[in-house]
Amino acid sequence: MKAYRIVISFFSSMIFLMSCASEHKKIEVTSPNDNVQVHFFLSEQGEPHYIVHYKKEKVVDSSKMSFELKDAEPLDDNFNIINMETSTTDETWEMLWGEDAQVRNHHNTLRVELEETSELKRRLNIVFKVYDDGLGFRYEFPKQEHLNDVVITDENTEFNLTGDHKTWWIPGDWDIYEYLYNTTAFSKIDALRHYNPKAHLGQTYVPENAVNTPVTMKTNSGIYLSFHEADLTNYAGMTLAVDTLNLKMKSELVGNSEHIKVKRQTPFETPWRTIQMADKPGDLIESKLIVNLNDPKVVDSLPYFKPMKYAGIWWDMHIGTGSWDYSGAYHAANTKYAKEMIDFASEHNIGGMLVEGWNIGWEKWWDKKKKQVHFDFVTPYPDYDLEAIVRYGKSKGVELMMHHETSADIVLYEKQLDTAFALMKSLGIHSVKTGYVGSVIPEGEYHHGQYMVNHYQKVLEKGLETQVVINAHEPIKATGKRRTYPVAVAREGVRGQEYNAWSKDGGNPPEHLTIVPFTRMLGGPIDYTPGIFNTSLKPYKQDNQINTTLAHQLALYVVLYSPVQMVPDLIKHYQGHPAMQFIKEVGVDWNASKVLDAEIGEFITVARQEKGTDHWFLGAITDENKRTIQVKLDFLDADKTYLARLYKDRSDSHYMNNPEVYDIEEKEVNSRTILELHLAEGGGCAVSLIPKL
Amino acid sequence: MKAYRIVISFFSSMIFLMSCASEHKKIEVTSPNDNVQVHFFLSEQGEPHYIVHYKKEKVVDSSKMSFELKDAEPLDDNFNIINMETSTTDETWEMLWGEDAQVRNHHNTLRVELEETSELKRRLNIVFKVYDDGLGFRYEFPKQEHLNDVVITDENTEFNLTGDHKTWWIPGDWDIYEYLYNTTAFSKIDALRHYNPKAHLGQTYVPENAVNTPVTMKTNSGIYLSFHEADLTNYAGMTLAVDTLNLKMKSELVGNSEHIKVKRQTPFETPWRTIQMADKPGDLIESKLIVNLNDPKVVDSLPYFKPMKYAGIWWDMHIGTGSWDYSGAYHAANTKYAKEMIDFASEHNIGGMLVEGWNIGWEKWWDKKKKQVHFDFVTPYPDYDLEAIVRYGKSKGVELMMHHETSADIVLYEKQLDTAFALMKSLGIHSVKTGYVGSVIPEGEYHHGQYMVNHYQKVLEKGLETQVVINAHEPIKATGKRRTYPVAVAREGVRGQEYNAWSKDGGNPPEHLTIVPFTRMLGGPIDYTPGIFNTSLKPYKQDNQINTTLAHQLALYVVLYSPVQMVPDLIKHYQGHPAMQFIKEVGVDWNASKVLDAEIGEFITVARQEKGTDHWFLGAITDENKRTIQVKLDFLDADKTYLARLYKDRSDSHYMNNPEVYDIEEKEVNSRTILELHLAEGGGCAVSLIPKL
Repeated sequence: MKAYRIVISFFSSMIFLMSCASEHKKIEVTSPNDNVQVHFFLSEQGEPHYIVHYKKEKVVDSSKMSFELKDAEPLDDNFNIINMETSTTDETWEMLWGEDAQVRNHHNTLRVELEETSELKRRLNIVFKVYDDGLGFRYEFPKQEHLNDVVITDENTEFNLTGDHKTWWIPGDWDIYEYLYNTTAFSKIDALRHYNPKAHLGQTYVPENAVNTPVTMKTNSGIYLSFHEADLTNYAGMTLAVDTLNLKMKSELVGNSEHIKVKRQTPFETPWRTIQMADKPGDLIESKLIVNLNDPKVVDSLPYFKPMKYAGIWWDMHIGTGSWDYSGAYHAANTKYAKEMIDFASEHNIGGMLVEGWNIGWEKWWDKKKKQVHFDFVTPYPDYDLEAIVRYGKSKGVELMMHHETSADIVLYEKQLDTAFALMKSLGIHSVKTGYVGSVIPEGEYHHGQYMVNHYQKVLEKGLETQVVINAHEPIKATGKRRTYPVAVAREGVRGQEYNAWSKDGGNPPEHLTIVPFTRMLGGPIDYTPGIFNTSLKPYKQDNQINTTLAHQLALYVVLYSPVQMVPDLIKHYQGHPAMQFIKEVGVDWNASKVLDAEIGEFITVARQEKGTDHWFLGAITDENKRTIQVKLDFLDADKTYLARLYKDRSDSHYMNNPEVYDIEEKEVNSRTILELHLAEGGGCAVSLIPKL
Repeated sequence: MKAYRIVISFFSSMIFLMSCASEHKKIEVTSPNDNVQVHFFLSEQGEPHYIVHYKKEKVVDSSKMSFELKDAEPLDDNFNIINMETSTTDETWEMLWGEDAQVRNHHNTLRVELEETSELKRRLNIVFKVYDDGLGFRYEFPKQEHLNDVVITDENTEFNLTGDHKTWWIPGDWDIYEYLYNTTAFSKIDALRHYNPKAHLGQTYVPENAVNTPVTMKTNSGIYLSFHEADLTNYAGMTLAVDTLNLKMKSELVGNSEHIKVKRQTPFETPWRTIQMADKPGDLIESKLIVNLNDPKVVDSLPYFKPMKYAGIWWDMHIGTGSWDYSGAYHAANTKYAKEMIDFASEHNIGGMLVEGWNIGWEKWWDKKKKQVHFDFVTPYPDYDLEAIVRYGKSKGVELMMHHETSADIVLYEKQLDTAFALMKSLGIHSVKTGYVGSVIPEGEYHHGQYMVNHYQKVLEKGLETQVVINAHEPIKATGKRRTYPVAVAREGVRGQEYNAWSKDGGNPPEHLTIVPFTRMLGGPIDYTPGIFNTSLKPYKQDNQINTTLAHQLALYVVLYSPVQMVPDLIKHYQGHPAMQFIKEVGVDWNASKVLDAEIGEFITVARQEKGTDHWFLGAITDENKRTIQVKLDFLDADKTYLARLYKDRSDSHYMNNPEVYDIEEKEVNSRTILELHLAEGGGCAVSLIPKL
């Protein structure tokens, strides 16, 4: 006997009961415009399954959903549907900072309540939110008699693909996210081979053939898919184990050394498992699915933070002209250099300045076993007058971005958290870059597990309390929490610019940042640190260089989204460069963002309109191939004429042997103009579009 | 005024004159069964062009052919056709050793004779040989008044592709050939990024975005193409420069530091530029195009050489249990060890034994600048009694394979060549493994340039004179010269097994040898040295392992073709292994070879019938994915019953964590049997098929 209670929906296309050969019913929920269809059903054994279609094409075949628990029977079969609810949401909310000022959240929801037919009658709900550009679903564990303390040893959410798709992926590392993206057929994913513990500074652990999310695919029929998660809170991060033979993925949560994935008490809910779908790759980026699946913001405004560019004492340490530690040949974090950097920032419309290596503890920061030195987040080295620098900065309109490298010693950092944030509050410092290099203390925990998810959350809450926004490096992946916690302004979680300074594998190839926007960036803002002008790294580095042209570096300020964008190169490398004009002018907060054209791994062109002005900025980058692209400026205001200033590759530019040459061209354009841009190998083009008065 | 003289062909389909819009004529020559069509024409400027169709589909679009010469006008335009000849050849020739006993050489030939309209009236002929599975064309420079000493600074033979094909490629390195194959779209070829001077022992030089040949492609319509050259004699090796934007390749000959590619005197002819075409990837391997485009053999028999397996003192040096040089902790090339190895070989039907490190000079062999030590190819270290070992071997039926590491000091080696080969002749040693590690002396020359091509040729001729067959390492690429010089039995020119012992990039991935047969092996036999049983490399190597199962290693004796196949592991690693039965039995010379099924980069199944017996052997290997394959045994003699012995992966085999387990299964089969083979991740299966009496 099954007991259904169906809430009849007020819209016609959203929900159906479809009859099957057996008595088992398929429940259908579609997106507002019917693009996306989801079918949910129980098998004869009462196992929950779902199927997804996009524009009538099956993109996820019949896939099971179940959990394995410690000291309890798995939650996998013998379920009945005891209740079902549907609803429609259509709201528009404001981003305090972001790619767009307004976000529409329009979806249909299906909540299915399941109960075991067996004696314990344990309950599990599954909620689907279906958008025109994808879906999210999550599990709710209701409060109930026979399920109180829950220890999840495995979540088995399947994603059964319908073809051997072209896939852009990184290994499902439990600790580190800083990989180059591989481009292979799904059946050729081989994460274990690409996992190289020696290639990384920090701890790294890939226990099986799995990928991290977002993982993005293109089907033979030309549909783009991306799998990820939203609202990762008090739960373990999800990697996706890969079955190359059967073309399936299955959630593999990040555990700890005791083989525990998640510990919770009912009631609780899991993060959303998300699938984005699009006909054009740029639509993946324009989608707001991930933020929409997070809860509304917990604050109405963020008066202490305004998106900004920031300079810094940082690149020195990567190219070897300075050291983090005080005992180095040139300790870069000194008062004199910091004041020079403030002057530089102030002259170039750069609102922030980061200083790394300012606090004691750097001499042995990587050497945890010896534990000879602990970081301290309040005590500057003797040559660094923190208060004077903060004061000098304020006098010049430049605010310090604080720096906390924790070396992933969470026990130590959490002890000092109150003090460290109190210092910032007392000095009026409103942003911090945190760092978590190396293996986690306590031992046995991993960066992407529940313990660390909760730690990162703790820091967000501490920031909210003390008016400090967080730019986390070696972070948990971005899952749209910036909607709920606007203090989560940016994070690394990417193979950033720094790899170009010292990696032994040739650095980030030109294609890297034509893939990152369609994978990592779907999660949220990236602190990549674009804008190195001395791309040759001469005379500092013999074996490394930046594998892009200078114009490509400029374009990244538009292509990559972050409300904090570093201007990282040494002051002297910017001096005398007319291209500094672009860095000075380019926006960091936007009314609207558009991906004009793109092919993943080949090129991308993005235009963004600055918030508070009517300026547009455009960035285009290409991979290792040169190409000519046509850019229609039909997004401009039809009533206006604009002065376009193009920062372009020269005809002889090339990322390998002639990366630093560029031309600047000015022309009048309007909404009917088609710009032809010539991008060199590894090149790019940055354009400012300012209305003429 | 043009003057044509057309020799009317006696077959109907082969040659046409097609009228064009202009006065310029297209000349068509087709293959015997019409599969392949070639059009040749002169543009209005008198520039030679060709176009190729395969089964009516255009596979090479209009492509130019020209030369740039030193101190002379280029040979590129203002040509007239002054003569044209066609003919058909259908012959069958015998391979003294090879994949098949008999080879059919069936093709149509078109020779076009061109003359400049300008004053010098220089002449150039172009000859096409068109086969049902591809074509070759070459240039003839006839003896003539105004073209005597020719210094070629560039050969510009274009290959204009008709799509952005999936491409398996290695960089066009002028020195080294030992790369993993990249699998990318043609437009994503980026040889310069994959060129890493530090990853190689020896000298390496990639001057531009070019690939080496054979380079193999798959079109969207499913046609397989491979571009290479045949009969590389007294000329520079050809790489193919890549134009990713226009999807074109252009010959880029390997030059020297004086920017000279080729120096010759007329009359002479270039190597054949070859294009193989096939519907199935295995047909590329079964094709005899490359050998057929070489001249007939210069000897009728090779009584002193019989294809053989060979053991050796060699793997010790790679895993660190022995040293090449006498001053090492354990100098492996000593009399006692050599005699033990002879005993081992004799017991296991292994006819040869290689000993490296036997001669003086290894202490500083890589240190050319200091030139402290010269190799000498006749003086053994004191602990190595060369004559006693040769005698002991002969008494046991095991013949020594001599070893000459030249360190690419060609000046030194050529001085000693007579003496070195005279020693072999006097001792009755009939094979030598030569080595050319490092940068070439004389300085300014590269391994793949004309100077070295001529050196390798000199060694072949010396071998022919002294009854010694050559197995060259760091060789010039294979271009089918084994037809003309059957002493060219094998060569390396591949990222061989040795990389698994010490490379810092994780060794050869499981897919490696599912690509090599369709690329490198199209040139000719490979001395890969399969058959490592201790795939974990424990306890010798912490950071390296062989990325295949043991059964995969066995299967390589069939999948990879060479008339000399090493059995390279340490004696103790073979002891007690029932799988040694396969190594003992497997053939090394063949009546017939068939690629039963394959997909490049995924799997390959090959069957070969041993020459002189009615035994068949079958090898199947897979990439990092496990798979189940069906193998029809319809190639067996329909009148016989066979005992099949299968050396198979176990269900829990896996190349990473359980590579050395296997099962042996015996069953009766016949030509109607379909074998189902389960290959593990990185696995394989080796099968012997012996007729029952």
